[in-house]
Amino acid sequence: MRITAIAGGVGGARFVRGLLAHLHSSPDADRRSTEVTVIGNTGDDITLFGLRVCPDLDTVMYTLGGGIDDAQGWGREGETHTVQGELAAYGAQPQWFGLGDRDFATHIARSQLLGLGMPLSQVTEVLCARWGLPEQGVRLLPMTDQSVETHVVIEDDEGRRAIHFQEWWVRHQAAIAAQQIVAVGMERAVAGPGVLEAIRDADVVLLPPSNPVVSIGIVLGVPGVRDAVRGTRAPVVGVSPLIGGRPVRGHADACLAAIGVDTTALAVAGLYEDFLDGWLVDTADAEAAWPARLAVRSRPLLMSDVDAAAAIAGAALDLAVELQGDRASA
Amino acid sequence: MRITAIAGGVGGARFVRGLLAHLHSSPDADRRSTEVTVIGNTGDDITLFGLRVCPDLDTVMYTLGGGIDDAQGWGREGETHTVQGELAAYGAQPQWFGLGDRDFATHIARSQLLGLGMPLSQVTEVLCARWGLPEQGVRLLPMTDQSVETHVVIEDDEGRRAIHFQEWWVRHQAAIAAQQIVAVGMERAVAGPGVLEAIRDADVVLLPPSNPVVSIGIVLGVPGVRDAVRGTRAPVVGVSPLIGGRPVRGHADACLAAIGVDTTALAVAGLYEDFLDGWLVDTADAEAAWPARLAVRSRPLLMSDVDAAAAIAGAALDLAVELQGDRASA
Repeated sequence: MRITAIAGGVGGARFVRGLLAHLHSSPDADRRSTEVTVIGNTGDDITLFGLRVCPDLDTVMYTLGGGIDDAQGWGREGETHTVQGELAAYGAQPQWFGLGDRDFATHIARSQLLGLGMPLSQVTEVLCARWGLPEQGVRLLPMTDQSVETHVVIEDDEGRRAIHFQEWWVRHQAAIAAQQIVAVGMERAVAGPGVLEAIRDADVVLLPPSNPVVSIGIVLGVPGVRDAVRGTRAPVVGVSPLIGGRPVRGHADACLAAIGVDTTALAVAGLYEDFLDGWLVDTADAEAAWPARLAVRSRPLLMSDVDAAAAIAGAALDLAVELQGDRASA
Repeated sequence: MRITAIAGGVGGARFVRGLLAHLHSSPDADRRSTEVTVIGNTGDDITLFGLRVCPDLDTVMYTLGGGIDDAQGWGREGETHTVQGELAAYGAQPQWFGLGDRDFATHIARSQLLGLGMPLSQVTEVLCARWGLPEQGVRLLPMTDQSVETHVVIEDDEGRRAIHFQEWWVRHQAAIAAQQIVAVGMERAVAGPGVLEAIRDADVVLLPPSNPVVSIGIVLGVPGVRDAVRGTRAPVVGVSPLIGGRPVRGHADACLAAIGVDTTALAVAGLYEDFLDGWLVDTADAEAAWPARLAVRSRPLLMSDVDAAAAIAGAALDLAVELQGDRASA
C-alpha cells in the first residue's frame, strides 16, 4: 500500500509517527509493508543567522527519527544553547527564535549543501538518511524546491506591514490579528520532485491534523498540488485539527480568522470540499450539518501519546479502506 | 605612541597580549596610552560547512578578549563539541578540523554579516567589539578584505597537488613535505582599510614571533604591504620565532624548508633584510654572523605566561625606542 500524507509541524509529525506505529504493528501484511510519503510544508522556512531553517521538515524528521524533544513537540531532545548564547553576545539578530546546538547542526549541514547547489529535496533526503526514515519506509518530500515563505499582514503601532510567519507565530505568539496570509514566491514555485506523483499514485491520501491554513493550506497552494489531490483515484481522508472547536495546540484559530473561516470542524472540512472523501472529527465535534457526500466518523482525537496517535491514524486508514471498498463496489 | 604589529595565530596573539600587559602596566604615560594596531593574517582562512573561519583573527581576538583556551593556544575556553558531533552524524565534511560550539557561533555570526555584504574588516570590528578590544586600545585589521587562501603543493600517493593550508597543517600535521606555498587570490588582493596607513604612520612596527612564511610572509605578500614596511619612518623590530634553531610550536621548520630557507634566526632575519632594523633572538641563537646594520639583542624568548610575554614585548619595544633615538641623533 502507498499512503501519502500532507503534513505541517507538530500535529503532522505526531500523526505520521502514530501511523507508522499502527502500520508496523498491524496483523495485516499489506499494512506492514506500506510505503509512506510525507509531503512537507516549507512555507515556515526562514533564514536565520544566514542559515536555512525548515521547522516543519525538521519536526517531522526528528519526530520519526526519535530525536525530538517530545514534551515540547519540536527541537531536539537533550538540547543545549551555547551557540545561541554566543550569538546574542555578538549582538546577532534575531534573538526571538530559539535554536539549540543540535538543531543548529541540522541547519548548518542543510545550508552547506544548499550552498553547493543541491536542491532542498535532495538535501532533505541526505538529512533524513541519518534519522533512519528510509528504513521505516518513509520518504519526506518538501512541497517545493523553490523558496516559498509565508508572510502575515498585520497592523499595529508601526503601521500595516507584512512580517515573516515565524515572527508572527513565535515572536508575537499570533496575538496580533492577521489581516492576510501571503505565500511569498508561491507563483514561481514548482512542486518538488515526486510530489504530484505521490499524490496521484497513492492508494490513500491522508490529511493529518495539521494547521489547515499555514500548513496544509500552503502545501495545497503549490501549483499542481490541489489539482493532484482533486484528481487522485485514492480516497482522501482528513483528520480534524480541532477538539471541541478549538485547536489542540498552536494558533489555528487565529489563522482561520485571517481567512474568514470559523474554527469548527465543519468549516475546516469546507476548505477541503473539492476533494475530501472522509473526515475524522473528535467526538465533541460530531454534531454538525455535514454534507451528504462526506463520510464523517468521530472518535477522541487527542494524540496524548504514540499509542493514541496510532489508534487515530488506524481509524483514518480504516475509513479510507472503507471508502475504497465503496468505490470498488460502486 | 602608535604601534603596529603584523601577527599570525598563537605566537602573534600571545605576543600582543604580552605587549598590552607591558604597556598598560608601564610607568611611562606615553606607553600606557599607546594605540596598538594588529594586522592579521587571513591566508589561513577557510570555508568549513559553508561558514567562513578565520583562525588567526579569532586567535588574536579570543586571546586579547580573555576567551581563549590558553592551554591549547587556540579556540574557546570551556568549549563543547555538540555541533561538530551532530555534523559528523549527518556525514558532513570535513571532520579533520575541530570546531567547538562557542567557536561555531563566531563563524556563524561572521558568515551572516559577510553574507549581507559587509566586508571582513567591518565584520571583524563588530566581532572584536564584543571582546572589548577597542577598550584596550587595540584595532584588529584583516590584511585584506579579499579572499586570499594559502595552499600547499604536496606530492604523495595521490600525486602532485595543492591542498588548503589547513588541510596540510591540521590534517597532515605538516608531515608531508611542502614543495611550494601559494597564496591563492593574492594578485587580486588589496590591502584592507587602514592597513597601509597603520604601517606608514606607526611610531614602531613590530613583527611578533609568528610563522615567517605562512603568517608574516603572507601578510607581507599583500600588494603594498611590504613597500609600506620598507618605507615607514618607524623602526621595524622583529622577534625571532625560534628558540635554539627550532620553532617553539607549530611547523615553521617545514614552512621554511618549503621555501629553501634554513631554520635559524639568521636565515629568518634574512627574509626581512630589506626592512628589518632590530631583531630580538633567543639567548640560544645569539651567536651568528649578523649583518652589521641589524641591531640584534638576545634574551630568553619562551612566552611561558603573560608576564614572560610582557617582558619580551617590553624588550622589543625598548629596542625600537633605542633605534628611534639613534635615528633622531643621527
